[in-house]
Amino acid sequence: MRYELYYWPDVQGRGEFVRLALEEAGADYVDVARQGKRGMAAMMKLINDQRAKRPPFAPPFLKAGKLVIAQTALILHYLGPRLRLAPRDEAGRLWAHQLQLTIADLVVEIHDTHHPVTSWLYFEEQRPAARRRTKDFWRYRVPKFLGYFERVLGRSGGSYLLGSRPSYVDLSLFQIVEGLRYAFPNRMKRFERKIPRVIALHDRVGKRPRIVAYMKSKRRIPFSQWGIYRYFKELDR
Amino acid sequence: MRYELYYWPDVQGRGEFVRLALEEAGADYVDVARQGKRGMAAMMKLINDQRAKRPPFAPPFLKAGKLVIAQTALILHYLGPRLRLAPRDEAGRLWAHQLQLTIADLVVEIHDTHHPVTSWLYFEEQRPAARRRTKDFWRYRVPKFLGYFERVLGRSGGSYLLGSRPSYVDLSLFQIVEGLRYAFPNRMKRFERKIPRVIALHDRVGKRPRIVAYMKSKRRIPFSQWGIYRYFKELDR
Repeated sequence: MRYELYYWPDVQGRGEFVRLALEEAGADYVDVARQGKRGMAAMMKLINDQRAKRPPFAPPFLKAGKLVIAQTALILHYLGPRLRLAPRDEAGRLWAHQLQLTIADLVVEIHDTHHPVTSWLYFEEQRPAARRRTKDFWRYRVPKFLGYFERVLGRSGGSYLLGSRPSYVDLSLFQIVEGLRYAFPNRMKRFERKIPRVIALHDRVGKRPRIVAYMKSKRRIPFSQWGIYRYFKELDR
Repeated sequence: MRYELYYWPDVQGRGEFVRLALEEAGADYVDVARQGKRGMAAMMKLINDQRAKRPPFAPPFLKAGKLVIAQTALILHYLGPRLRLAPRDEAGRLWAHQLQLTIADLVVEIHDTHHPVTSWLYFEEQRPAARRRTKDFWRYRVPKFLGYFERVLGRSGGSYLLGSRPSYVDLSLFQIVEGLRYAFPNRMKRFERKIPRVIALHDRVGKRPRIVAYMKSKRRIPFSQWGIYRYFKELDR
C-alpha cells in the first residue's frame, strides 16, 4: 500500500515522527504537501472537506486506503505492526503506544518553553515568561521525562525501548534528542551524562542505514526557528 | 474482571474521564487511591516499583489483570470495546481514539489558562500571563476545538459523536462542558449558543441513569481550585 502523509511542508514538527518511521521501514509513501502547490492544495482540500464523516482535527494525518488517521501517536500506533516497528501482541502494542503518548506530552512542553503565554505573540513579546518556563522545564520536566525513558531502557532487556528490536518509539526518542540538541545545545550537553542509555539509543538509531540516508537527503527538512524546537541563546545558559 | 483505577484521590483531573466510562458501563472497579491511606500507599508502591518492566509514567493508570496501562486516552481505548463504549471494528476504534486524543489536547490547554508560565508558581504570581492566555484560548482555541466536535456531531448520523450509540468520547465531552461551566461560567454561557449540538449531547449524557446516579454519589469528587478547571473571576469576564 502507498501511504499518503499530510503535514505542513516547511517544518519537521509532529510530522517528523511519522516520517522517521516510514523511512526506517522503507515504506512506499508520499509526503503530499511537499509535492509543490498541488500537494498543499490537496491537503487543504482534505482539511476543509465539508462532507467528510470523520474529518481530521489537524495535520499530521495519514491516508491509508480509505482510512484517514490524525494524531501523531495514533498514526504510529496504526503503522507500527504494519511497518514491523511495533510488536503484534496487544500488550506490546499498548506499551509502545503508551510510551509514544508520553513523548507527545513532552513535545508540547518543549514547544511551550519558547511560547509559554500564547502562540499569538512573538517570542520577543514573552521573554521573561519563556525564561522562567525554560528554567522549570530543565529543572523538573526534562529529568522526569528523560529519566523515565532512561529507566525503561534499563529494564527493557535489550538495547531498544521495547527490547532487542527497534520500534517507532526509539525513532521518536532519537528525534527528541536531536531537537533538544538543536534548541538547547549547552543545557543538553550538560544533561546528557545523566541519561547514558538514552544517548546510546540515539546514537544506535542514528547509525541505522536508512536513517543515515534519510538524514542526508532533501526529504529531511532542516531544523528552523518555526518548529517545535527553536534556538534562543538566552534560554540556553 | 475487576478493574483497578489508580489516580490522585482529591481531584477529578484526568482520572475523571476513566471514572465516567467505568460508571456508565456499570463496571466492577476499585478507585484504589480513594480507599484510605492503604489505597494511596498501594498507588505509590506501583509508581515507585523498581522492578516493573513497564512502569507507568504518571497517574491515571489502570490495572486489568496483569496489564498496567497509563495515559488516559489509551486506558479508554483499551476499555472501550470491553465496556461496550466503543465500536469493535478497527476503523471505528481508531476514530474514537482520535477524537479522545483531541480532547486530551484540549485538556492541556484548559489547564494552561490558569498556569501558562509554569506549574511551580501560584496563579497569583502569573496573573497577566493567565489573562492573556485565557483571552486567546477563548478567541481561538475554544471555537476551534468545540467547533470541531460540533461539526463531527452534525455528520455522525446519530445523536452521539460516533452515531446512534454513546461512546466513551461522549462522556469525555460531557466532562469538558461541565468543567468549562465551572471555570468560566460567564464566557461559557455566551459561547454555548454557538455549539447547540455539543450542548444537546451534554444534556443527553447528563440524563443517562448511571451518570445521574454517579453525579449524585460521593464517588464524584466536586470541582475545586486544585484541578484542571479552576474558577478565577478575572479570567471570566
